[in-house]
Order: sequence, then C-alpha cells, then structure tokens
Amino acid sequence: MTEFTPTDRTKVRRKPDRGKYDWDTIYAILDQAFVCHVGFIADGMPIVVPTNYVRVGDKLFLHGSTASRLMKTLGSGAPFCLSVTLLDGIVFSPTATGHSVNYRSVVVMGKAEPIEDPAAKLAAMRDFVEYVLRGRWATVRPPTDQELKGTMVLAVPLVEASAKVRVGFAVDSDEEYASGAWTGVLPFKWTPGEPLRDPRGNQSVPVPENIQRYTRPQ
Amino acid sequence: MTEFTPTDRTKVRRKPDRGKYDWDTIYAILDQAFVCHVGFIADGMPIVVPTNYVRVGDKLFLHGSTASRLMKTLGSGAPFCLSVTLLDGIVFSPTATGHSVNYRSVVVMGKAEPIEDPAAKLAAMRDFVEYVLRGRWATVRPPTDQELKGTMVLAVPLVEASAKVRVGFAVDSDEEYASGAWTGVLPFKWTPGEPLRDPRGNQSVPVPENIQRYTRPQ
Repeated sequence: MTEFTPTDRTKVRRKPDRGKYDWDTIYAILDQAFVCHVGFIADGMPIVVPTNYVRVGDKLFLHGSTASRLMKTLGSGAPFCLSVTLLDGIVFSPTATGHSVNYRSVVVMGKAEPIEDPAAKLAAMRDFVEYVLRGRWATVRPPTDQELKGTMVLAVPLVEASAKVRVGFAVDSDEEYASGAWTGVLPFKWTPGEPLRDPRGNQSVPVPENIQRYTRPQ
Repeated sequence: MTEFTPTDRTKVRRKPDRGKYDWDTIYAILDQAFVCHVGFIADGMPIVVPTNYVRVGDKLFLHGSTASRLMKTLGSGAPFCLSVTLLDGIVFSPTATGHSVNYRSVVVMGKAEPIEDPAAKLAAMRDFVEYVLRGRWATVRPPTDQELKGTMVLAVPLVEASAKVRVGFAVDSDEEYASGAWTGVLPFKWTPGEPLRDPRGNQSVPVPENIQRYTRPQ
C-alpha cells in the first residue's frame, strides 16, 4: 500500500486511530467530494474560501479568475491548507457527549504552482469539466484564448496529505446502553435530484443518461 | 431587514451581486448546515479543521476536547475564519468555462470566548444535542462533571459575517446556447438514508419518528 509520510503538520494527533495516510483512502475521498475549503493568510489574518478542484494523478488542480484573491495569493506561492470533508452520518449515543458524526476528511498542506503553458492549462480545464461529468468536454464550446488568459490554473502536488475517518456506532460503555434511548447511525448522502432544464437551452435535446442517473465515486 | 455591516474582510468582492448580509439569509444557511471549516494560524501556517457548531441567537458555539489544538488555539483568543458551504447543484452550460455550481456559503470572522460558567456550558451542550435532533437531550444521560471539565465550549459572537449565494442557470450569451449540449441544473441535497440500529442498543426501542423522517431546515 502506497502511503504519504505523516509530517508534523499532517499527522493525526487527536484520535490517532482515525488517521489514514494511504493513497487509496485519500484519493477516494478527494474524488468523491466536490468542494474543498482552502485556508491561507492574508494581511496576517486566516482566510477560508470554498472552491472546486480536480485530482489528476498525484496532484490537484485549482482554478479561478486571475482577479480572485485566492488565486492571486496561492499563485504567488503562499503556503495553504486545503480541507475536504464528507459527512457520512450522525451517531446517536446513549449519552449526551457520546454523540458524534461519521465522516471522511482529507487535509493537504502545500504550495501551488501556476500552470503557464497554454496546452497544459487547457488540459487542466478539460480535467475540470470531465470531473464534473465524464464526456462533457466534447459537447461544449472549449475555452477561448481570452477565457484561458483570464483563468488561473494552479497545480498542487500531493505530498503532505492525510485523511481522518470515523465509522461505526457510538463507543459508550455497556452500562450506558441500558438507557431507553434509541441508538444507531443515521447515514447521509449527497444525492442528485431531478435535472432542471435551462429555458434558454435547446429544448429538443434529451437529458443525457449520465446526468439523469448522475453518480460520483462512492 | 436586519443586516450585518460588510467589513473589509467580509465584503464580497468577486461577483458582488452574490453577496448577502442580512441575518435571515446567513442564519438559514448556518442552521441547515452541519459542518464548518475553521481556519486559524498555528506556528505561522494556515490550518483548516472541520468541526460541528450550533447557532443560538446571535452567536455560534463550538466545542471539543480541551486537548484539541483547534480548541486551545481559538480558546486563547486567536483570530479565525469560519466557513460553511452548502452545495445546491451543478450548472451545465453550453461552454466549458460557463459551467458552475449553485451554492450558499457563509463566512464568519472573529474571535471566540471560552464559556467557563458550568451552567452556561451545560446549556450550550444541550443546544448541541438539540441541534442534532430536537428532543434528544431529554432521552440521554447528561454530561458528568468530568465530561464537562474535559470539554471546551467556545462562543463566537456573530458580528462580522457575510453570505455568498449562486442560484439559477448558466449565464452564457444567447449565441452560445445554439450548441447541441443539454443545459440545465442538476440539484443536489444532503439526504438521510435508512437509520442503522446499534447492535449494542436496546433492540425493543422503535426508531423515533424524527429520526426515521429526519429533516433539517431547508
């Protein structure tokens, strides 16, 4: 099993049994999620911004307007912390403090590198669209030179990363379970609803099968 | 409509039309979500940690072990940035760069104050359990003195906060819509599944109605 080496910054210290460092676990969480929260320092203050990303091999790509503070800060080489969290369930315990949540989270520490080469940038933008929906890129108008110029794409090498995972039921002592409260886990999923057709779109185009039955890696 | 005053740190600069500052919008997002990402600075580096919270009136409560770095750092008065994001849908556009996501996010800048008074701390812990499930507190064993001592509860006054909201379809020009791609929005929801009974629990207790049909404010 190929693993990241835990560092001072990525080693899970609280509840260390929940720490995971292997690529399979970390990549699966990243591939299922859709939004990350990026923390950086601006004017001496911590700032957290939600944004999209795509994982390609051993790196993540971030993208955004060249005018965005997030892109400008990360593009200048500022250190950041990127966090992804999937909430899998609520854990109902017989005790107040035994309640918990099941989750899978990933933290990535790093620095980003702007992708300047137009072909590499275009390839990353295709990866973004294909991450949203496989096969979508071929059906839409590709970016113009001006759109490419206005977009910053950043590569984040996955070097310092760890996952933290909680699964299962409450962990109270057997005596606590003698109470009359129902105990268990209420699982949650991020599920797609019925596609809503854009009134400005071509009304005769059927909803593609992979949008009608949208899935992400579980 | 009661609003937060935008500050240098909370004013939405990119796509300012998406910025919302009224209490109703911000409180509704906070009340629906379950997990926030808290950014702070430790040893000069930005750190982002996911955690739970509960909103009570014009403040948030955070809680955790007194041994956790997040609690120790925030409890010492370090400035932080707290971000909550609800992903509402994927926006399919006729162009590659026109793809987007619908979301509702909130950012809170601030400093936290530890709650030392045992009665106030206990009340906040009740709020946490009731936030997970209304009526749950009365059915479970309350915290012991030792559990209370081992838990840090922080109050975060909601003073500097803003929301950013994207709704609706793609915004490409009419000419772009002439392409043959299906366009629209695929909505997403965070939905509960079937409750899983804890094998260590009392097997004769029926699943409570409000767990079987769990809802959060929409």
